[in-house]
Amino acid sequence: MTGKMSRRRLLAGTGLASAAVLAGSGSVLAGADTPPQDTGDGIIAFSGPHQAGITTPEQQHMVFATYDVTAGSTAALAALLNGWTTASGRMTAGQEVQGPDGPFAPPPDTGEAVGLPASQLTLTFGFGPSLFDDRFGLAGRRPAALVDLPPFPNDALEPSLSGGDLCIQACANDAQVAFHAVHDLTRLALGSATIRYLQVGFGRTASPGAGQQTPRNLLGFHDGTANLDPADHDAMRQYVWIDHGTDQPWMAGGTYMVVRRIRIHLEEWDRNTLDSQEQTIGRVKSSGAPLGSKNPADPVNLNALGAYGELVIPNNAHIRVASPALNNGQAILRRGYSFADGVDLQSGELDAGLFFICFQKDPRQQFIPIQTRLAGNDALAEYLLHTGSGVFACPPGASADRPLGAALL
Amino acid sequence: MTGKMSRRRLLAGTGLASAAVLAGSGSVLAGADTPPQDTGDGIIAFSGPHQAGITTPEQQHMVFATYDVTAGSTAALAALLNGWTTASGRMTAGQEVQGPDGPFAPPPDTGEAVGLPASQLTLTFGFGPSLFDDRFGLAGRRPAALVDLPPFPNDALEPSLSGGDLCIQACANDAQVAFHAVHDLTRLALGSATIRYLQVGFGRTASPGAGQQTPRNLLGFHDGTANLDPADHDAMRQYVWIDHGTDQPWMAGGTYMVVRRIRIHLEEWDRNTLDSQEQTIGRVKSSGAPLGSKNPADPVNLNALGAYGELVIPNNAHIRVASPALNNGQAILRRGYSFADGVDLQSGELDAGLFFICFQKDPRQQFIPIQTRLAGNDALAEYLLHTGSGVFACPPGASADRPLGAALL
Repeated sequence: MTGKMSRRRLLAGTGLASAAVLAGSGSVLAGADTPPQDTGDGIIAFSGPHQAGITTPEQQHMVFATYDVTAGSTAALAALLNGWTTASGRMTAGQEVQGPDGPFAPPPDTGEAVGLPASQLTLTFGFGPSLFDDRFGLAGRRPAALVDLPPFPNDALEPSLSGGDLCIQACANDAQVAFHAVHDLTRLALGSATIRYLQVGFGRTASPGAGQQTPRNLLGFHDGTANLDPADHDAMRQYVWIDHGTDQPWMAGGTYMVVRRIRIHLEEWDRNTLDSQEQTIGRVKSSGAPLGSKNPADPVNLNALGAYGELVIPNNAHIRVASPALNNGQAILRRGYSFADGVDLQSGELDAGLFFICFQKDPRQQFIPIQTRLAGNDALAEYLLHTGSGVFACPPGASADRPLGAALL
Repeated sequence: MTGKMSRRRLLAGTGLASAAVLAGSGSVLAGADTPPQDTGDGIIAFSGPHQAGITTPEQQHMVFATYDVTAGSTAALAALLNGWTTASGRMTAGQEVQGPDGPFAPPPDTGEAVGLPASQLTLTFGFGPSLFDDRFGLAGRRPAALVDLPPFPNDALEPSLSGGDLCIQACANDAQVAFHAVHDLTRLALGSATIRYLQVGFGRTASPGAGQQTPRNLLGFHDGTANLDPADHDAMRQYVWIDHGTDQPWMAGGTYMVVRRIRIHLEEWDRNTLDSQEQTIGRVKSSGAPLGSKNPADPVNLNALGAYGELVIPNNAHIRVASPALNNGQAILRRGYSFADGVDLQSGELDAGLFFICFQKDPRQQFIPIQTRLAGNDALAEYLLHTGSGVFACPPGASADRPLGAALL
């Protein structure tokens, strides 16, 4: 069926880009630290020194999934990751998944993205701590930085929304393209891994030219104003990418991902006054500027005092407690999507909020101490409920001759 | 805060269109049966003889919600519907909700759509059968066609995903804009109605120019090839819009909406052979053409026989059982969105599928007999599980001087 319903045939000019996608280590070394770019045809190269979907500009839609590996051998796990590598190279290039074909075989691609462009699809893979038990002989390969996250105050984690041996973050500017990718990767895992958790997220992200400079979250505030700039190579080297001096060389060029499913008590937040909302966040709601400043890009002056000697940015304001200045200069590369999963049957409230994703060199120095401060001190914490959690080691970028996990397995 | 963070100010050229949106019955009567059109600035007029979001071309995203009314009087219910009318007029024009303002009041708009264009937002409202009990004196105003749906074979309806006194269908080409609208309407209902169910859906709908002529559902098949054409005025008059001869004059210009949350057993479907999938649907997967034909638009010949005298379109093929020819010539205007709500904890399967929406003049003559045939005979039925259901009376279009429900209350 591939010939009959190729996505590629319906797209103009993808031939060259597609050829480059799986060209292997030759193209991998070119342009080493440039964030993956749309080459103009909606395609973001799957291969590279780092995985795409980390410093890639945020797309409008996300589907995140975790898996429990059921494969009975290391070879079967490697086969799964090989299959995922090949399929990912094709889907990110706007092509169908290939496989045994014909009327009396199941279609090798589930088909719902046929005719849709690549849509800036990125697929980012990670390995959870539980993968490094004794099933696959990986206990000695677990990086020291891949710690289990400690419990934080007020956590309300549900096991079905947390953990997992493997994860996939699919992001695209078309929701159906993102879902299709996870759908087909889940199908390909049949017999080797079962899906544990799937989360759909939508764009806080402004469409190009839409006028929303920094996207707003469901609190109605700009989110990401003080985030690390993914195009800042030095910052990415300092905070995100793991270098060759790491304890587990297979992680060189990789990074650690922490995800948190954060429900927002929107009903309570929405009844809060504007003044209280702004004191909670530490920014002006309309402009995104730090309190006491005019422009969103103004530096945050944590010491500024008001007319009565009070702190202009309150002691427990979110941006103060999260500030690198109060976290040993540490920062994380944030990425995140809003979600709305219906009505929580117990509380009758909307089960909506932020699916928080961050990348970093070492969660022990970055996410964990930052979240410890936030959970205990942040004025925003009373409006939040962390219901899901995960930490994953994201290996370096894959390619046809260096599939996902090749250096690990 | 409205002045400081108006969505309108960030948009060029919305002034005239915005003024027209709530201009009232003068503009309502103009162009009576033309489907609502984007006037070029992303705005689809909220006012009109019919509600928007019915014959409007399908947008890429949907948020559907139902509510249980808690208001203690008919006047309080009318106040809720008046407030919803005003807010809907503003939001569909890309403007913020207005209300008491200032630092010591809650913001009158939750804010997450500030800076985003109207994005073809439509808001479509309906009244469920349960609204017509003795709480609001409406028992005598219930239309005969607004029947409770009967149980169908293999229904697996969950009460929390079914029913409701009121419903809102929000559709837009930006997921955050659609969510924002329901978020703010839910907030405005505080004290008058509580949210019962919220469902996010994503576009099977092709982006303009994306090359996917008829969108594909999660089965991977084109969906909607034989749907009624919303631009066909005669068909809309015949099958969708209620005329003045109805038993409840307040419904003239309205229609009935049936929604079904249909989980698709994707794991089983995906393992099915291409031949079996095509025999189940009755169409060629790649092209969408009826089996035995070449083009998607070819008429379905239900009598065609193959080389061995067998029916080319099998006796239980979906398109045969759903065909108007086998349903007394009856048809419905379908609209629908894919959904992916995570992993079902009981089965371990994806809780994903189709949120089916249809509009019609009389569910007793249209959806109910069609679904009765389908549930008993359709080969596709074994892959489907109906988990949610609702039927709603959608009144005619509202305007500032004729708010939602004005003719009913």
